[in-house]
Amino acid sequence: MAATKTYLTGIQTSGMPHLGNYYGAIRPALTAAESNDSLYFLADYHSLNSVKEPEKLRADIRSVAATWLACGLDPERTVLYRQSSVPEVFELATILSTVTPKGLMNRAHAYKAARDRNEAAGSSELDSGINMGLFNYPVLMAADILIMETDVVPVGRDQTQHIEYTADIAQAFNRLYGEHYSFPVPEGAYPEGDGSILPGVDGRKMSKSYENHIPLFMPENKLKKLVRRIPTDSTPVEEPKDPDGSVPFRLLAYLAAPERTDDVRKRLEAGGMGWGDLKNELFDEIDTRFGPMRERYSELMEPGSELDDILETGARRARRRAAATLAEVRRAIGID
Amino acid sequence: MAATKTYLTGIQTSGMPHLGNYYGAIRPALTAAESNDSLYFLADYHSLNSVKEPEKLRADIRSVAATWLACGLDPERTVLYRQSSVPEVFELATILSTVTPKGLMNRAHAYKAARDRNEAAGSSELDSGINMGLFNYPVLMAADILIMETDVVPVGRDQTQHIEYTADIAQAFNRLYGEHYSFPVPEGAYPEGDGSILPGVDGRKMSKSYENHIPLFMPENKLKKLVRRIPTDSTPVEEPKDPDGSVPFRLLAYLAAPERTDDVRKRLEAGGMGWGDLKNELFDEIDTRFGPMRERYSELMEPGSELDDILETGARRARRRAAATLAEVRRAIGID
Repeated sequence: MAATKTYLTGIQTSGMPHLGNYYGAIRPALTAAESNDSLYFLADYHSLNSVKEPEKLRADIRSVAATWLACGLDPERTVLYRQSSVPEVFELATILSTVTPKGLMNRAHAYKAARDRNEAAGSSELDSGINMGLFNYPVLMAADILIMETDVVPVGRDQTQHIEYTADIAQAFNRLYGEHYSFPVPEGAYPEGDGSILPGVDGRKMSKSYENHIPLFMPENKLKKLVRRIPTDSTPVEEPKDPDGSVPFRLLAYLAAPERTDDVRKRLEAGGMGWGDLKNELFDEIDTRFGPMRERYSELMEPGSELDDILETGARRARRRAAATLAEVRRAIGID
Repeated sequence: MAATKTYLTGIQTSGMPHLGNYYGAIRPALTAAESNDSLYFLADYHSLNSVKEPEKLRADIRSVAATWLACGLDPERTVLYRQSSVPEVFELATILSTVTPKGLMNRAHAYKAARDRNEAAGSSELDSGINMGLFNYPVLMAADILIMETDVVPVGRDQTQHIEYTADIAQAFNRLYGEHYSFPVPEGAYPEGDGSILPGVDGRKMSKSYENHIPLFMPENKLKKLVRRIPTDSTPVEEPKDPDGSVPFRLLAYLAAPERTDDVRKRLEAGGMGWGDLKNELFDEIDTRFGPMRERYSELMEPGSELDDILETGARRARRRAAATLAEVRRAIGID
């Protein structure tokens, strides 16, 4: 029997997630971490790199916590906490800095992307507008992961480097101090999925940066309007249609059970079903699937809901673990 | 009446200080911070960048704390604490990172010096061997200073940049969040001194890196041997001598009261006083001046001395202040 592995999932706190995030990140993470020792944290200090308005940051944190809970995160079985509730993380990041080569950070994707943008904009100072929070991001993330003695981090393929860096940093520490304490070296777990990508309303990958996204938990009437506005061609109702060439059908195929998709496909190919009918089917599918979650989300967002209690309990459980790890690390390095 | 200003002095924990440190740093700092709201911290996490042996780090911290106490630091009037006892510092460093431009760190002296050494050594990777602790050093130091709402930092002239950086970072924070909370912008205070430099046993500036230093608190017999070995020329006892051309005299002139120096100068110039006699005078001067401190140091270094209690009390007082600052900062940024 293998020992229980610890899973840790980091949650960005930047605004309301959309359907693409649900299928691409939230659901796979909830599935990957099922029946394990799982922790989820709201990476609020990571958000501080970009969000400098206190009211927005505060609201985002609440909203994202409520979203994940509404999507099925079970705060009894798993530990849900705010990064900012576990100060041990920041002390560990300070410790890890002393064993992390600067060269590693120079090659970090997010930092390099920011430099590339400056270069493309013709800036003479490639570090222009880049703050130390961004540059330190991989060290802080390593601390997030290592403080919980994490074995597995369910992440998207674009996060591979972060896991590699964390493993490198853990190994650098272990080489120096392994006689006294060793971090488990974490691995990434990549959601299996079918590799397909949820399209946005313009047919490209759904993404906030394309402004083609359908937010989770939109009020019913707004959702209906948004679905109605998805562009389609002008084929008349009675004529046969190519389902796979239309965005509403591709969205439906992604969300609905295969039987429903097949049924709608046949009706479109046969002619007699208009794009408006298809959009009604799509709205109905989204509403049925996400309506109950939306209701739960609204409950949690009410002032005085159990959200604060849930986060407080999570913080207590997370700190207990973090404090135990930090105490061992401090002993190992000679700061005790 | 001006309000009481808060003074903060950072203490490096790297090994036993020498006479040059006493006159160049310890005594001026103790004088500068007299009759004020003063805090002193042992920068143990800064040392972790270079000291990777837990036993050595542990011993260094105790030894340096005992040294400053023996030199006259009064733990009742001032607050003496270990940086590692105040975790609020590391959380604040994380926050300050998000308002600190990376470009500022690129120009930091300690970092640039390390790159220059790599360049001089012909290394193709200028960041080779540089860890993130060194690169982040100015941010962590800013957190050390700002968490205590420090007004004045007594430092050497070579530390001017750190104070400027801390002021820059404080102002960057204040510009963004000043509506909710503002840090006092700290200033450096530079010990007045006479600009003279204590020579080492070879006549160059006393420095550990030249291996020409006289450690504070050497056992009497070892100190005597060390002083005896200071090189002098071969002028016979009975001949007149040039006092200012000899290292033992220059040391004596630095340490002793003017009357004693004048008396010895006359005897050397008159002839009849040998270098051996001069060295006896110097040994006697050092031993008289530092003997009582050495005794106090030894008491504090005994296991079970009051050293641990002093550091614990200091930690409690320091954390109370740090927690108050951090709570305001968190409210200001929207993480509360």
